[in-house]
Amino acid sequence: MLDEKISRSLVMLDSFDNVAVARTSISPGAALKCTDGEFLSVDSIPAGHKVAVAHIAQGASVFKYGQIIGQAIADISPGQHVHSHNLAMVDVHADYAPCSQIPEPPTAIEDKTFQGYVRGNDKVGTRNYLAVISTVNCSASVAKFIAQRFPAEELAKYPNVDGVIAMKHEAGCGMQFGGDAHHTLNRLMAGIANHPNVGGFLLVGLGCETGAMGYLLKQQNLIQIEGVIGTDGPGPLVLSMQDEGGTLRTVEAGIAQVSKMLPKVNAIERQTVSARHLSVGLECGGSDGNSGVTANPALGIASDRIVACGGTAILSETSEVYGAEHLLTRRAVSPDVAAKLIERIEWWKNYVAMFGAQLDNNPSPGNKAGGLTTIAEKSLGAVAKAGSTALVDVYQYAEPVAAQGLVFMDTPGYDPASVTGMVAGGANIICFTTGRGSCFGCKPTPSIKIATNTPMYERMSADMDVNAGTVLEGESIVSAGERIFDEILEVASGKKTKSEQQGIGDEEFVPWLVGPTL
Amino acid sequence: MLDEKISRSLVMLDSFDNVAVARTSISPGAALKCTDGEFLSVDSIPAGHKVAVAHIAQGASVFKYGQIIGQAIADISPGQHVHSHNLAMVDVHADYAPCSQIPEPPTAIEDKTFQGYVRGNDKVGTRNYLAVISTVNCSASVAKFIAQRFPAEELAKYPNVDGVIAMKHEAGCGMQFGGDAHHTLNRLMAGIANHPNVGGFLLVGLGCETGAMGYLLKQQNLIQIEGVIGTDGPGPLVLSMQDEGGTLRTVEAGIAQVSKMLPKVNAIERQTVSARHLSVGLECGGSDGNSGVTANPALGIASDRIVACGGTAILSETSEVYGAEHLLTRRAVSPDVAAKLIERIEWWKNYVAMFGAQLDNNPSPGNKAGGLTTIAEKSLGAVAKAGSTALVDVYQYAEPVAAQGLVFMDTPGYDPASVTGMVAGGANIICFTTGRGSCFGCKPTPSIKIATNTPMYERMSADMDVNAGTVLEGESIVSAGERIFDEILEVASGKKTKSEQQGIGDEEFVPWLVGPTL
Ligand SMILES: [Ca+2]
Ligand SMILES: [Ca+2]
Ligand SMILES: [Ca+2]
Ligand SMILES: [Ca+2]
Ligand SMILES: [Ca+2]
Repeated sequence: MLDEKISRSLVMLDSFDNVAVARTSISPGAALKCTDGEFLSVDSIPAGHKVAVAHIAQGASVFKYGQIIGQAIADISPGQHVHSHNLAMVDVHADYAPCSQIPEPPTAIEDKTFQGYVRGNDKVGTRNYLAVISTVNCSASVAKFIAQRFPAEELAKYPNVDGVIAMKHEAGCGMQFGGDAHHTLNRLMAGIANHPNVGGFLLVGLGCETGAMGYLLKQQNLIQIEGVIGTDGPGPLVLSMQDEGGTLRTVEAGIAQVSKMLPKVNAIERQTVSARHLSVGLECGGSDGNSGVTANPALGIASDRIVACGGTAILSETSEVYGAEHLLTRRAVSPDVAAKLIERIEWWKNYVAMFGAQLDNNPSPGNKAGGLTTIAEKSLGAVAKAGSTALVDVYQYAEPVAAQGLVFMDTPGYDPASVTGMVAGGANIICFTTGRGSCFGCKPTPSIKIATNTPMYERMSADMDVNAGTVLEGESIVSAGERIFDEILEVASGKKTKSEQQGIGDEEFVPWLVGPTL
Repeated sequence: MLDEKISRSLVMLDSFDNVAVARTSISPGAALKCTDGEFLSVDSIPAGHKVAVAHIAQGASVFKYGQIIGQAIADISPGQHVHSHNLAMVDVHADYAPCSQIPEPPTAIEDKTFQGYVRGNDKVGTRNYLAVISTVNCSASVAKFIAQRFPAEELAKYPNVDGVIAMKHEAGCGMQFGGDAHHTLNRLMAGIANHPNVGGFLLVGLGCETGAMGYLLKQQNLIQIEGVIGTDGPGPLVLSMQDEGGTLRTVEAGIAQVSKMLPKVNAIERQTVSARHLSVGLECGGSDGNSGVTANPALGIASDRIVACGGTAILSETSEVYGAEHLLTRRAVSPDVAAKLIERIEWWKNYVAMFGAQLDNNPSPGNKAGGLTTIAEKSLGAVAKAGSTALVDVYQYAEPVAAQGLVFMDTPGYDPASVTGMVAGGANIICFTTGRGSCFGCKPTPSIKIATNTPMYERMSADMDVNAGTVLEGESIVSAGERIFDEILEVASGKKTKSEQQGIGDEEFVPWLVGPTL
């Protein structure tokens, strides 16, 4: 648990830490205070950089986030600047030590609720969209044309419908039939069709694509308007442009089908449900030096609350977790879960090696200037989003997430690809921290954007939902985290995020498919 | 040159051939006629299948398209069905024999013209778009919002402007800085900015992406409104969302910039220019058994005309040419050009091997049922689009195409990725043959769709521009090819293609980027 009583000029990320982070630049001789007492700054400490809050003998471990980020390569006194000159990762070999540090379950939170759309399968939506899903790029324009015929004005008489959306992408053919890319895409398509935020769906394809609809329907066992109460049978589910006779006829047929589905999708109303139905995808994009100090740890507090409610928090971005994976394996609830994560890390090493590259999550020159010293420290800043609970399962990209608790999904760090995987896995809320200022939104899931610093929050206020830059001005991380948790509950109940207000989210569906484009 | 005097029930693709293709199914005993005389059908020949028109001794070569498609594995008499039972590729090892069969240059055609938009650099556009180019997925929505503010009604006062288009895609970050994917994407972005069909452009990015705009501008030496006559200097060219302060402010700034550019882009008028300014990208998608018999050979005639005019024809789709590449190396104008093609074929073998796959262009069961016997025959059907002239150069994906004559660009067969590469390379017309019925369109280049069969042409008449299925009903391939050539000139002069009429082309910009997504 974080200490609330530290000096306003320092952020201490864990009470076990022997370093703290300078909120603003600190001059030599400034009076500092932490849990262990008062002391004076010895060096000039730039904002975002680390200062020792205890004696650290040469060879001893340096702790931040309650975790080892490296070893002192010189004796360090309280008030001294801690960076590359006196801190290094001496032993970079990770000891996975599976299940060696499984946290106690958090104290259950029973009373938190939101207003959600209850589906037939114990899933609950935070939105109620009708999705026109394009199975291949060749039908992307047709899916868009169908959705465009149902603008907000047209939907005024369906107050429980959040919109008719086209889920379109660049893939679906030019791939090996039955190969990895094909199966991943099918999982993704099914994840959207079955998504708790999707009240009804229509699949549109060209007809001759490798990603054939017949195979998709059979492999994923898709049925019509899954979760819509009162549907009168499976009915027509798919449109093939080649069968319908081209663009115009398919658009007309799609408009007719959507019109028929709309009253059914509208028949569902929000009702009070337990917060255990929240499945929150955690993302960072456009990070800055504050990400690991403000927004990510604050989001970690919110993640812990979600898990305490019985909900699900999804960490992802394997390439950015790299270097801190041993901390997740130690928190894994079983050797099997740890092994799944290690297998994914090994897969990534091979994946990038195929292209003659290697996974490199080392702090960049910009990171170093911002105060990050070691790979573990950088990765911990990303993992901080996930809070402090046990890791209960590991999922492949876009795999349906069934577990309650903290889980990991294997995705790239690239924002739209990562979020697309978590959304396809069932995330009904996305929390997205950003320092430089990403304007990301996605459909069908609302994306809450959390600013790491106040200047960016103010400059981009029409795109940012929560300001965690307040941590640099004295707010505790716990307090910022509680605000994020409150915002999650409000957004889940229908409050529109900034990116929803802006209409963003139709272009950001980006499947990550590994395999040759043929 | 093709023979015009053959029987109406057979298509003979080259006068040197010893097989012809059945236009419709032929019963045993039917009277057939070819250049060498009359004979009777011996077997039942399904439509699209081959029938011998001469004696072929066991071990002798079987010729189709004037090329060897395999060897007879039994003695074959005129009128006999030629397929897997009596034809096989005995020696699959290709003899590249570079430059061994360089065709004579075609008789020059001097008098063909079209009405084009002349740019400052000897390039001529067939359309005059203003492009809002998104450098990364994070700015895709903003680029779209800017373009959406300029619908057709709004552009009525700018009759020389074909539209304001958003060029958006799924990539631009999560890639290695300076790696292959990054360089290819930069080449692509520059290819659109400099495209002859683009009268003015605006680049929009987020700000923190790997595909940084500063690097793009410098590496590709981009200048503002390239090709617009009367521009008053380079001026502001790029918008960064993080600099502008988010979505809304960037959209407003973009609208202001586009408004300022529109009169300048509108100031250019079509004028009469030589057909040598045509650069025609050749594509097939949704092929059927007729593709290699009707539309592709007919498009080959049109390609020969384009080259005779001094224009450029671009063959691509490396994965579908595989198996016939030795025919292109023999037609290469220099050993260097042949070597470039061979290098690309070897690259592809390694590319697919990385994923544990191999290039497999063998006829599928469906192909075999349709009458295709060998890999050479199948590939020749694809290469037939390129006509009979010499191969003058080979280009990397999205590389600017400078040569006049027939060239090859390395692309996947996947339609949107292949066409995106040719368009970025400067293609100002796309000719797209289809049998199953693709509704493909792209921007900023018009796509002429050529049906391989009449039933599909009629069923999808709102999407098809030219019917080459008439070849199965008695029209000669040369005549069908002349019709395609005429259509190219009309479309180049401003006639709208079917996909332009339908508004297709905003979702089909699909960069092919090789490298890990990080
Ligand atoms: Ca997309
Ligand atoms: Ca559903
Ligand atoms: Ca990310
Ligand atoms: Ca695209
Ligand atoms: Ca193709």
